[in-house]
Amino acid sequence: MSDVRIDDLPIRDELRGKSPYGAPQLDVPVRLNTNENPYPLPEPLVERIAERVREAARDLNRYPDRDAIQLRTELAKYLSDTGGFPLALENVWAANGSNEVIQQLLQTFGGPGRSAIGFEPSYSMHALIARGTGTGWISGPRKEDFTIDPAAAERAIAEHRPDVVFLTTPNNPTGNAVPPETVRALYDAAQAAKPSMVVVDEAYVEFSHGASLLPLLEGRPHLVISRTMSKAFGAAGLRLGYLAADPAVVDAVQLVRLPYHLSAITQATALAALEHTDTLLGYVEQLKSERDRLVAELRAIGYDVVESDANFVQFGRFADAHAVWQKILDRGVLVRDNGVPGWLRVSAGTPAENDAFLDAVREVKKELEA
Amino acid sequence: MSDVRIDDLPIRDELRGKSPYGAPQLDVPVRLNTNENPYPLPEPLVERIAERVREAARDLNRYPDRDAIQLRTELAKYLSDTGGFPLALENVWAANGSNEVIQQLLQTFGGPGRSAIGFEPSYSMHALIARGTGTGWISGPRKEDFTIDPAAAERAIAEHRPDVVFLTTPNNPTGNAVPPETVRALYDAAQAAKPSMVVVDEAYVEFSHGASLLPLLEGRPHLVISRTMSKAFGAAGLRLGYLAADPAVVDAVQLVRLPYHLSAITQATALAALEHTDTLLGYVEQLKSERDRLVAELRAIGYDVVESDANFVQFGRFADAHAVWQKILDRGVLVRDNGVPGWLRVSAGTPAENDAFLDAVREVKKELEA
Repeated sequence: MSDVRIDDLPIRDELRGKSPYGAPQLDVPVRLNTNENPYPLPEPLVERIAERVREAARDLNRYPDRDAIQLRTELAKYLSDTGGFPLALENVWAANGSNEVIQQLLQTFGGPGRSAIGFEPSYSMHALIARGTGTGWISGPRKEDFTIDPAAAERAIAEHRPDVVFLTTPNNPTGNAVPPETVRALYDAAQAAKPSMVVVDEAYVEFSHGASLLPLLEGRPHLVISRTMSKAFGAAGLRLGYLAADPAVVDAVQLVRLPYHLSAITQATALAALEHTDTLLGYVEQLKSERDRLVAELRAIGYDVVESDANFVQFGRFADAHAVWQKILDRGVLVRDNGVPGWLRVSAGTPAENDAFLDAVREVKKELEA
Repeated sequence: MSDVRIDDLPIRDELRGKSPYGAPQLDVPVRLNTNENPYPLPEPLVERIAERVREAARDLNRYPDRDAIQLRTELAKYLSDTGGFPLALENVWAANGSNEVIQQLLQTFGGPGRSAIGFEPSYSMHALIARGTGTGWISGPRKEDFTIDPAAAERAIAEHRPDVVFLTTPNNPTGNAVPPETVRALYDAAQAAKPSMVVVDEAYVEFSHGASLLPLLEGRPHLVISRTMSKAFGAAGLRLGYLAADPAVVDAVQLVRLPYHLSAITQATALAALEHTDTLLGYVEQLKSERDRLVAELRAIGYDVVESDANFVQFGRFADAHAVWQKILDRGVLVRDNGVPGWLRVSAGTPAENDAFLDAVREVKKELEA
């Protein structure tokens, strides 16, 4: 219609010159760049989804259950069964992906005139959603080995007095977990400084060697644990994120949630997937052992690897990580350059996909050393 | 876990004491309170949804098409076929309900330090989403008969210089349409004042006696028309809203959209519904004639009725609208008290539902006059 460009529009100043977030999607044989679960849903679950969606579609002219009672009840049951801590409906909230959960948390507890801190490199959407909600962003420190130094982190919290503290465990893109004692210490530091909300992003926790931090919710009303069905449940296409917290937190996010934000179709599909939890967690066990194999093989090849509790592995170090990313891509394997200097990230795929990746990096190493 | 209340949490000050938005949902025989389409989707469409969702579920371990290319293409085709103006993929953006579309627009063009105006009473989510995005809200004037006085509206725009102007046509909850010449005049006023974005909310336009304002997009890069599949497509449970605008606007909202915001399941379901457009628009014709009957009958009973271009009717006037709302509810019919003093709103239901409503209001009128 016209030759108008974005910058000709009256967009917010902080958006000028920015590009939309998103991994490049390239059409290559082996895609190990977005931490997707490589195992398609089992066919009985696919049928069950079709069945539950058919049922929901018969009532689609009506608004969905605004409070997603049944879904939140089943999510609470899943967390109680696997997290070592009893939770109920009133402790759980769900939204379209954990990104929307985080957006609602920042609209409630962050926003204009407030700030949030994350310890970087970490999940970059935390900073982007902060920007999108007008929340100031503070980049907290990590050590050279990508662990969090509790003393340095406490100093950053005391200095900046953020309203929201993000802790991602296992961390993305580095893969390592945050020890529970660090979470406890930083929660206390955050309460002493402000008090602040502490959001523990456990998107990848089902792949961890250790346990979920859900039991820390006891006696910590400012702690929120966010989760997703994208990874362990093999349902990245579903966009179902959720959180567990004190019931007051669940009440509070309802002040900013868009009414009827979660469609009847989404609720039906998620409920179907939760019926098949045992099967899906079986795939998680396979992926954990493939992840451990990737760590071991990459080290055997001679790369540095960050200890991983996730379904992906960060490996390096490279003088020019992006050039190596391209060389691996030239061999038909797409990994992720998250912009962490010297490092790349690979998602655990099927055994065959991981073999293709390992063959590619072996070749690249030889080429680089030639 | 604890007896913490919302106000014990460090929520934003402007959220203190607020309640979540949402119509009370009561279990009564006839629910005419949320402008839902009373006709369930036809069974062949229900089957087609199950089929397309089954197909999408086989790939659910992968992230959805982040740009929803196929869905936006089909939405553009629908708008071109019915709106009298050719539109393509690059003119259309989609999200989880028109509420999310509006949220994305305010994150892009509103936000902290900026303001938006609406002419009230109107769709109350515009003001609530403004609050949720930190956008200042200006309540613009309407006349006693709920039409917009262009001169008064132009004065308000010139005085407040808002960054975003909302025009809802047909207006909710009053039902009346905004004439195209008023939209043109207010667009010009908004450009002279700032320049500002003008968002025309056409959620109910398919029920209108008049045509869509889509042709006004020509030569107006700051105009956005928002739409939904909740009403005319009988898919309130699906949560699919969309907008049409200059391609630069579509590019701009992608700077704030959460990546992969629209699930593969939602995209599949919406595509199935779009295959059945003709059938669904047939129901719209039935609802328009029922809407016209409600207007005529309510006037015959002796009520004041605002001229309606929507699938609902605002009627009055009552000394105590809420008391009348309760009396109608006592007769098994749920209508909506939108807080417009003296008026209530009823959604057009099936002929039997509308009969039940009309019987109830006849009885209530007799009781009030007794």
